[in-house]
Amino acid sequence: MKIIRSPTSMAAWSEQLRRQGVKIGFVPTMGALHEGHRALIREARLRCDALVVSIFVNPTQFGPQEDLAKYPRTISQDRALCRKEDVDVSFEPTVEAMYPSGFQTMVTLPTIARRWEGEVRPHHFSGVATVVTKLFGVIRPQIALFGQKDFQQSALVRQLVKDLNLGVEIVVYPTVRETDGLSMSSRNIYLSPDDRIRATTLYKSLQAGAEIIRSGVSDGQAVQAAMAQVVEKEPTLTVDYLVVCDPHSLEPLSAVTSRVVLLGAVRIGSVRLIDNILTNPPRRSS
Amino acid sequence: MKIIRSPTSMAAWSEQLRRQGVKIGFVPTMGALHEGHRALIREARLRCDALVVSIFVNPTQFGPQEDLAKYPRTISQDRALCRKEDVDVSFEPTVEAMYPSGFQTMVTLPTIARRWEGEVRPHHFSGVATVVTKLFGVIRPQIALFGQKDFQQSALVRQLVKDLNLGVEIVVYPTVRETDGLSMSSRNIYLSPDDRIRATTLYKSLQAGAEIIRSGVSDGQAVQAAMAQVVEKEPTLTVDYLVVCDPHSLEPLSAVTSRVVLLGAVRIGSVRLIDNILTNPPRRSS
Repeated sequence: MKIIRSPTSMAAWSEQLRRQGVKIGFVPTMGALHEGHRALIREARLRCDALVVSIFVNPTQFGPQEDLAKYPRTISQDRALCRKEDVDVSFEPTVEAMYPSGFQTMVTLPTIARRWEGEVRPHHFSGVATVVTKLFGVIRPQIALFGQKDFQQSALVRQLVKDLNLGVEIVVYPTVRETDGLSMSSRNIYLSPDDRIRATTLYKSLQAGAEIIRSGVSDGQAVQAAMAQVVEKEPTLTVDYLVVCDPHSLEPLSAVTSRVVLLGAVRIGSVRLIDNILTNPPRRSS
Repeated sequence: MKIIRSPTSMAAWSEQLRRQGVKIGFVPTMGALHEGHRALIREARLRCDALVVSIFVNPTQFGPQEDLAKYPRTISQDRALCRKEDVDVSFEPTVEAMYPSGFQTMVTLPTIARRWEGEVRPHHFSGVATVVTKLFGVIRPQIALFGQKDFQQSALVRQLVKDLNLGVEIVVYPTVRETDGLSMSSRNIYLSPDDRIRATTLYKSLQAGAEIIRSGVSDGQAVQAAMAQVVEKEPTLTVDYLVVCDPHSLEPLSAVTSRVVLLGAVRIGSVRLIDNILTNPPRRSS
């Protein structure tokens, strides 16, 4: 596996392969790789000829009060995982190379970034959209894979690629979970042992919402109430949102008539967790 | 010459040539082509294997009070000029294809867009940055040419390409002028015969500024006063700005110590004209 730090060298590597007709796949990460990333990388490996994984803790997507400084950095283990999964290049740019003096361009998607995570984290999605545009510019992959766990992010990336004609196929891969249902996240290590157990409540609440939808309840308010009820049993959890949304626009729905996404975010102490489930109403028997 | 209207077809045409190692050149225009465009297209023709000219009056770079509706549209003549100059593709997307329902992504460069044209036209440069990013995404040229006449625009595009790692070489081609010095512009047709004569005052004023810089005056205020003096003789002209700036940051300079750009914008009746000159202080004799 090649380790490339310079964006210029990365672009040159990519350009040379593209000219030979090689299909380039790309998995962007912030490192601290876990089984969720491994699943993404394996899926990517099957879908391309040359596979690039980026490891870059992007400062522009963190708020001033957020965990940029303490975000887990495990570069040796990350590289070992990438090597094992037959990644061709680990792209590890420095912050200075990505945001040199004079840097100023920002990419914003005001509609899709307005609600949910965007409300709690005001500049987060503009940071994500900008760094994804840059990484796509450097690597110019034919295909890129994102985890479903960051559902709003994946919806934003799809819209971004369409809006800016970036010509990258976006694949969103299902969330990988611990055996008790907690979605894999680099931030799970922040949880105390007690909070780690309580954290499963988020997924349980989303499951409760999905269950009553599949049982035929179509009222959005009723679904939200069912989800809220589960979380309320765990008073150490604070809900940021627990909602039923259109999976493309992420607008909240008053009635479930087709495929929906249930989105949730909770706080346990100083740790913030997000999760989601895609689900369908029962087929109408006619 | 091929006329392509669909961004998807355009991207496919480009992609196929790129795979064959063909160097693609690109000249973005809003049509109403004049001798300035012709010079750009000729220069581009010399620098690439396959040449794409886009003809697209981009609505997002016009303000609500601006001339979008009456902007000159001369598509038959434009195509004839392109054919004559051996252009390979005239890319003529519709507004609907470029900005379909749900479109929301905007690209902004707050620092470089803050002053001068950006002050008078608040959303203009975000419209320019967004459409240029889109056009580069569709065509993926190796090289693109812009006219020096829109100096701030060309500085913005350079910064945009660097910031978003778009990998396009940007060439800025000198302004083409009428015999009396007026810079070529699609908007010159708006001028009445009298105003057409008065319009040359803008370039004369910039020339006066350049002249005293070359004569050894280095005080920014003095240079601006020299330029203002010329325009004041023509009371039908209103000055928006007449300034001495750093040619990269476009920040105004209090002292001329190296290459500078003189930027000017004036109004004659309802017509707004911009122009600029790049110049150097005299070499110091030691």
